[in-house]
Amino acid sequence: MFILYGIGALLLRLGMAIHAAGMVRSKNSSSILIRSIADLCLTTLAFWAIGGAILFSPPKLFDPHLLFSVGSAFFVVCVALIASGIVTGVASERSKFFPMCAVSILIGALLLPIAGRWQVGWLRHLGYIDAGGASMIHLTGGLCAAVAAILIGPRNGKYNRDGSSNGIPGHSVPLASIGALLMFIGFIPTVLGMSSGTIRDDFLESPGNILLAAAAGGAASLLLCYFRYGKPDVHLIIVGFLGALVAISVSPNTLNIWAVFIGAVAGIIVPLSAIHIDLTWKIDDPTSGIAIHAVSAIWGIIAAGALASGSFLDRLKQLGIQLLGLGAIAALTIILSGALFFILKATVGLRAREADEFDGLDLAEHDIGAYPDFQQTTIKSYHLREA
Amino acid sequence: MFILYGIGALLLRLGMAIHAAGMVRSKNSSSILIRSIADLCLTTLAFWAIGGAILFSPPKLFDPHLLFSVGSAFFVVCVALIASGIVTGVASERSKFFPMCAVSILIGALLLPIAGRWQVGWLRHLGYIDAGGASMIHLTGGLCAAVAAILIGPRNGKYNRDGSSNGIPGHSVPLASIGALLMFIGFIPTVLGMSSGTIRDDFLESPGNILLAAAAGGAASLLLCYFRYGKPDVHLIIVGFLGALVAISVSPNTLNIWAVFIGAVAGIIVPLSAIHIDLTWKIDDPTSGIAIHAVSAIWGIIAAGALASGSFLDRLKQLGIQLLGLGAIAALTIILSGALFFILKATVGLRAREADEFDGLDLAEHDIGAYPDFQQTTIKSYHLREA
Amino acid sequence: MFILYGIGALLLRLGMAIHAAGMVRSKNSSSILIRSIADLCLTTLAFWAIGGAILFSPPKLFDPHLLFSVGSAFFVVCVALIASGIVTGVASERSKFFPMCAVSILIGALLLPIAGRWQVGWLRHLGYIDAGGASMIHLTGGLCAAVAAILIGPRNGKYNRDGSSNGIPGHSVPLASIGALLMFIGFIPTVLGMSSGTIRDDFLESPGNILLAAAAGGAASLLLCYFRYGKPDVHLIIVGFLGALVAISVSPNTLNIWAVFIGAVAGIIVPLSAIHIDLTWKIDDPTSGIAIHAVSAIWGIIAAGALASGSFLDRLKQLGIQLLGLGAIAALTIILSGALFFILKATVGLRAREADEFDGLDLAEHDIGAYPDFQQTTIKSYHLREA
Repeated sequence: MFILYGIGALLLRLGMAIHAAGMVRSKNSSSILIRSIADLCLTTLAFWAIGGAILFSPPKLFDPHLLFSVGSAFFVVCVALIASGIVTGVASERSKFFPMCAVSILIGALLLPIAGRWQVGWLRHLGYIDAGGASMIHLTGGLCAAVAAILIGPRNGKYNRDGSSNGIPGHSVPLASIGALLMFIGFIPTVLGMSSGTIRDDFLESPGNILLAAAAGGAASLLLCYFRYGKPDVHLIIVGFLGALVAISVSPNTLNIWAVFIGAVAGIIVPLSAIHIDLTWKIDDPTSGIAIHAVSAIWGIIAAGALASGSFLDRLKQLGIQLLGLGAIAALTIILSGALFFILKATVGLRAREADEFDGLDLAEHDIGAYPDFQQTTIKSYHLREA
Repeated sequence: MFILYGIGALLLRLGMAIHAAGMVRSKNSSSILIRSIADLCLTTLAFWAIGGAILFSPPKLFDPHLLFSVGSAFFVVCVALIASGIVTGVASERSKFFPMCAVSILIGALLLPIAGRWQVGWLRHLGYIDAGGASMIHLTGGLCAAVAAILIGPRNGKYNRDGSSNGIPGHSVPLASIGALLMFIGFIPTVLGMSSGTIRDDFLESPGNILLAAAAGGAASLLLCYFRYGKPDVHLIIVGFLGALVAISVSPNTLNIWAVFIGAVAGIIVPLSAIHIDLTWKIDDPTSGIAIHAVSAIWGIIAAGALASGSFLDRLKQLGIQLLGLGAIAALTIILSGALFFILKATVGLRAREADEFDGLDLAEHDIGAYPDFQQTTIKSYHLREA
Repeated sequence: MFILYGIGALLLRLGMAIHAAGMVRSKNSSSILIRSIADLCLTTLAFWAIGGAILFSPPKLFDPHLLFSVGSAFFVVCVALIASGIVTGVASERSKFFPMCAVSILIGALLLPIAGRWQVGWLRHLGYIDAGGASMIHLTGGLCAAVAAILIGPRNGKYNRDGSSNGIPGHSVPLASIGALLMFIGFIPTVLGMSSGTIRDDFLESPGNILLAAAAGGAASLLLCYFRYGKPDVHLIIVGFLGALVAISVSPNTLNIWAVFIGAVAGIIVPLSAIHIDLTWKIDDPTSGIAIHAVSAIWGIIAAGALASGSFLDRLKQLGIQLLGLGAIAALTIILSGALFFILKATVGLRAREADEFDGLDLAEHDIGAYPDFQQTTIKSYHLREA
């Protein structure tokens, strides 16, 4: 069955690449896909070279015999690709190709293995609930992406002098939507694969719950759009739909009604936080990956504690454990990725040259045009730099 | 294995969404995909809230304890999404977003559960043959879509005053073809999942038969195109290819030679009926979903009776049972969906405003352009209303 | 599990179709997809009618009772589609539709069954190593495609009078990349399915090795591009990435470190040979299918012999067996496909009319435009014939 789960995780990763490709402008759409392939290669090699030795060495601190040996860790590698894929999307359209390769190596070699080790180690002993591994996949990936987005800075033309934000539409809504649907399909086997080691009872409930939570998330964001903006906004609904999937992955074996609750709340807060991250915090995130992955993971981890079985005191204690685990993995991610991006920024630089960003990374970095047979529009407002 | 079957059904559903997105004009291509996501959410929630209680309550007429509880019905929900997805495609480019949401709820809450209940109930006792559930998936979905298409009316510019029909080309043949191929891939696990409960012997024959029937369907429509139109028409071949898949899903465990026969006949009659529905009946169906799903299901159900084992009288009896089941489920579908669409049409209205249809539903309903980076053509003949 | 493996092989085939569709110009992109569907249908029917009787008749030379009976050969048919799909891509943009249908029939009825029969017959007795069936899938398909490309000749405008080669960019880099990623995902179950009959030990190593080899191939071609061309070229990286997958499929149960080695070498030699085939041999291959499939298979087969366990003499002997098998299957492929293409060329002709090639096969052969809603560019240099 791990073959099926792993293939599901790869379909989820492919969905992320397709979604991100649709969310960027056509002049950067080859770039996002070749980066996805490079990220896939480097994360896999980094996990094989070093990461596996960190993840599988307990009780020892580090077992050098396990270097360069993934062994049967196929599924773990597939899952690691999801975390690193988040960064590819969020940092797109303005970052340099080669420095971003270092992120794949960091995630495959250190970040995911340490987070995974904690999760099956001291966090599990404390009773930390995270069946689908949202902490080690989505929280790490989402926060690493947030650090990247902050240190790289927003795309040219994204924020105006008066602080207002411009929407920069992706070049293909169909691609973005198809990618989101493929992510949804891939989520189900991925979460089952992650939770198959930890969940004994109610395993059969999980697939239904994942469906239900996604449905509740999509429906809630549909209602949010209707009441707040009058029109069902494609991207906000997708953000709510995918956010619910991340949130339910923490506790897929919950009761049906809680799955709907977790999904529906995610369908409200994740789109709102995507807007908040853009408009208030001014973090430029072309794929809304920070909200979809990090915010949803935080919500899912908190909800799993708050909805745990037992008395009110038990729940409070569980909530404390959840917050502890959340804080520990978040701190780990921010420190490691902050250090990496800081060093990269100070040395080789993270940001593409302004002219390259203007031309598009496809042409500047890969000497290719994504759609040579089609006439492109030039939406001036996005390209014009302020004088 | 039900995880694999369910994922297969979701891939089939994704293929339907991609196919439909390619078959509509670019100004409606975001609309079709966001409707697919909304449909997915609402059908799932409706089945969970009410549908499951209807489907799983026998021998009781209705078991209120089963409300809001899908339990392990993951695969059934995935299959329900296929039925409701048919309507999304057929009613595209001219229907309003919110009224069409009611269809998803009808299918998830009532139509599919009742049809499914009949199929595992009194129809199975009579000996009704429908291993892959074509009656409850494709017949219901296809006929519901036909009712929708008739009551909504054709797209502006589709039919001329003299009764002739204009072809309105979809905006992306590659998307449509890729969607069709993904539907084909998803069909195999879906049919196996549906038939795994009913077929004991020859189960291993089924995957090969599904392939064979699809191949025969595609080859037959290729020959049809060659002899009738001189050129292999992309969409007619796809219609024949997919129609054969629906037809064989009724009896995937038949003999190889009958699978080829069922597929080949479907490859002839389904494209011809798609043309007939358009030119003679003047039902506007952008995705040919009525022919692909309803006509093929009818052919498959009849063929399964006619090719049943036993004497001529046995076959005649079986054919009678097939026609009875077919009629019952068709009547159920037409009555339920007719009532719903009639009420919707009389109250909120089903049809988008003419100006919105002209602008495209992407812009009118979702405030988005599917392909902002590309220059669009305006094929005047499709947009010009007759004076 | 064979359902999963077969679906994986079909996803790989779909990935090939998507990749090829992206690599051709938009005026031929419908053509490539409808040919993929036709190829799928005809290969399946040919295998059912004749191929299965050849493949499954041992010890008899040919068992007429097995004609028209695939039985449970679902997975084998799925795999045969991969071989025939290679030719569809390589011969695209300039070949006629109907003559190319004969290739599908040749591969399904004769080429793949005979190669497969040899592989499980005398080659296996000799100790020939090819767990993933690269000889019968990729070597046959790739060499058949090479014969086709040579006999059909290059596309108009591909080679200049002075012998230099023009790059003819595909119409959608995103489609090509998405197809490549889907091929990668499909490779894993396909190789597992093929090798599940032959590999007993270390079966669990295989999925991880396939990932590792692909990662090494992608990373190696990334470095190659960086050092040789200064920029990471999208298509060369994809060629290296996919080539590594084909190469590792010969011996997926090797040691981790050898998987990385096989992949990394494939990541260097496959892109270089793709360039060599284009620039030096002047074989026009829009999808680089000859390098990806044939060259990689040859490398993988040789590497499996050279890296076999045992003394130096044992390895030398194994290498001899590998070269014998390689030569036998290559000779079979070249003779059979050479004869077919020669007859076709001498009778109905293989090559589309010059005017049809100029207009694009979509319009000329299928009366359809792939993207009617988008304004196309006309890159004159590709269309202008030399005076």
